[in-house]
Amino acid sequence: MPVNLHAPDPADLHGVAGLELGIAKAGIRKADRRDLLLMRLAPGAAVAGVFTKNRFCAAPVTVCREHLGLVGNGEALPIRALLINTGCANAGTGAQGLADARASCEAVGRLMNIDPRQVLPFSTGVILEPLPMGRLTAGLPAAQADLKIDNWASAAEAIMTTDTVPTAVSRRATIAGRTVTVTGICKGAGMIRPNMATMLGFVATDASVGPDLLAQWVREAADQSFNRVTVDGDTSTNDAFILMATAAGELSVSTMASPGAAELRALVFEVSRLLAQAIVRDGEGATKFIAITVEGAGTGDEAAAVAYAIAHSPLVKTAFFASDPNLGRILAAVGYAGIDDLDQGLIEMHLDDVHVVTRGGRHAAYQEADGQRVMKQSEITIRVGLGRGTASTTVWTCDLSHDYVSINADYRS
Amino acid sequence: MPVNLHAPDPADLHGVAGLELGIAKAGIRKADRRDLLLMRLAPGAAVAGVFTKNRFCAAPVTVCREHLGLVGNGEALPIRALLINTGCANAGTGAQGLADARASCEAVGRLMNIDPRQVLPFSTGVILEPLPMGRLTAGLPAAQADLKIDNWASAAEAIMTTDTVPTAVSRRATIAGRTVTVTGICKGAGMIRPNMATMLGFVATDASVGPDLLAQWVREAADQSFNRVTVDGDTSTNDAFILMATAAGELSVSTMASPGAAELRALVFEVSRLLAQAIVRDGEGATKFIAITVEGAGTGDEAAAVAYAIAHSPLVKTAFFASDPNLGRILAAVGYAGIDDLDQGLIEMHLDDVHVVTRGGRHAAYQEADGQRVMKQSEITIRVGLGRGTASTTVWTCDLSHDYVSINADYRS
Repeated sequence: MPVNLHAPDPADLHGVAGLELGIAKAGIRKADRRDLLLMRLAPGAAVAGVFTKNRFCAAPVTVCREHLGLVGNGEALPIRALLINTGCANAGTGAQGLADARASCEAVGRLMNIDPRQVLPFSTGVILEPLPMGRLTAGLPAAQADLKIDNWASAAEAIMTTDTVPTAVSRRATIAGRTVTVTGICKGAGMIRPNMATMLGFVATDASVGPDLLAQWVREAADQSFNRVTVDGDTSTNDAFILMATAAGELSVSTMASPGAAELRALVFEVSRLLAQAIVRDGEGATKFIAITVEGAGTGDEAAAVAYAIAHSPLVKTAFFASDPNLGRILAAVGYAGIDDLDQGLIEMHLDDVHVVTRGGRHAAYQEADGQRVMKQSEITIRVGLGRGTASTTVWTCDLSHDYVSINADYRS
Repeated sequence: MPVNLHAPDPADLHGVAGLELGIAKAGIRKADRRDLLLMRLAPGAAVAGVFTKNRFCAAPVTVCREHLGLVGNGEALPIRALLINTGCANAGTGAQGLADARASCEAVGRLMNIDPRQVLPFSTGVILEPLPMGRLTAGLPAAQADLKIDNWASAAEAIMTTDTVPTAVSRRATIAGRTVTVTGICKGAGMIRPNMATMLGFVATDASVGPDLLAQWVREAADQSFNRVTVDGDTSTNDAFILMATAAGELSVSTMASPGAAELRALVFEVSRLLAQAIVRDGEGATKFIAITVEGAGTGDEAAAVAYAIAHSPLVKTAFFASDPNLGRILAAVGYAGIDDLDQGLIEMHLDDVHVVTRGGRHAAYQEADGQRVMKQSEITIRVGLGRGTASTTVWTCDLSHDYVSINADYRS
């Protein structure tokens, strides 16, 4: 059961002018489910992306980096199409996997009469299995025939793996007197500890955004959203977060000094953060949504190291699942987070409004009943003070339940 | 159910001359269970120890470091007694916890007529709760009255927490013409990712071992045993591994050049490794015992980083629980282990004798049925080749099962 998260009402998802979405049932892994998504961008759109830092990255990630000019001499053609399949990650597939990823771009290129280098391929699903190219290419015409602007809800469904609800967030606002739309979808659930980006996240706006600004925003948005969530600490082979600006709407910004740039940036970041948090809310087996704020750190990296140590501790996560205020487990994680000169006598810890630890020991006024009250909530904030400096960060995670084990023990069967 | 591990037959556990063990039921946390262990060393014994690197270390760890001369000016009195309680970790207890750990040494000192600084205190159990000093000191006379050489089986039982079987290993051998005994006990089960040492491990020999040699051996033995096992990646606040040489037996070694030193070292290391492996075999909820060997690494640290990334991946661990050869999850862990210039095209992977991955992709001859066959075993070896150098290491771990979640969701109730 996702934590305070519901499938979006298609009526709430605003189409983004200049971007059409088409869905097909290609039978990649299972019959009769939406598993292929084609996105078509109108000429003039700008696209930027960040990808997994996993060195065992999937073949489509390698091809995306090439087509976006992120490797080599940096030259790239304008991106006109994105192809996403679920059911197979095309990772751990060696030279054949790379050939398959390129062949899928060629198939889209033939269909849409564009250069294969104008296509970005994405895959999610099981690792170490070959992409079923026959079924994938056979599904393309149906996806093309389905292309339309108001297709975001189906698109969100087509990229799901073990997600239990499709995830989409949409905002329409007036910025600098112009109407602007930002809509995004993502999928997550397991193998979620994004490092630069999440499993798959796509956010589009109809504004025109200068390419340098777009490239900057996709990195910053990732750092404040997808790079701050974790389910199980497993950084995926396929993480990708893509930001698209179709330039088909009213607003145009080229630098942060452009009228409306700050507001549009905030809107893009809000959609990204809500999408990233949705991944945690629908994390495999999640029953609790937990925000971990670390304050008083010497550096941002130090704050993140402590927050992730807490967020990845199986003992902390199972205690939250049980609503058991066995909070010493949090202190243990703080202690092994890698800060060699940590002074445990300066540690403070709050659970929501409850002051649990002061000066490294149990607060005299702390009552277990107060801890218990907070632990029973579905949304909980852990706040740890290190007493070392002024840096802070927040990481979002979920608990570790029986269902996590069941889901991952049964995933392929 | 521990994996191929049974409670030791008391008749198989050799007493170590010069070391007596006494057990009591002090009611530290639960009534009517063995929870207090007192060890008395004869004059002339040498003691060396390594302790957790968790910066939130427990109060008794701080006191042990002081009494062994590991902090300050290095001066220390000969250790004559060890006191171990289960049921309460005396960690996250601030200044009062430190005072309690010192007070327990004073109580033992009064009872045995020795200086409190000749006592090493150890605690294991729940964090963030005060040590019940009244019950602990009240239990001391019964532990003293119970002191005897052949008490190792009861001692192993007295230090258990969520362990399901007591763990003890004993060897008697003839080295350089002299009879030598090495016997040890340990406890583990959860919060197990030792960093310098495990939760609690005690190994004793009746040989005389020079103090510098003993200090060297305890570090080396930890590195090859307790520092190479992990259950859940949570480094405990209380890890301690203690090596004792009573000098009450026949063999005496002062340096590695002494006759019999190499053989005794091997025996001590064997006992340490078997104890450490027993912790994994009895890891919380364990159903599989998994050895992870990483070869072809550039350095030992690199090999260990990859091995631990695999060993800590919840996705890998749940796949083993399910006997599901979803082996791409292992590749993903290799990829995020932190080697920035890893070439995935050089990766090889075997599951026991089955060649699964070659040159970073699925081996042409690999059949899922072969992977399935190995995954169903209770003991499995994962072998990963990195193609970077000649360094290698092995880490032992267990799977992640429903019982792990149940045990840790219910631990305190």
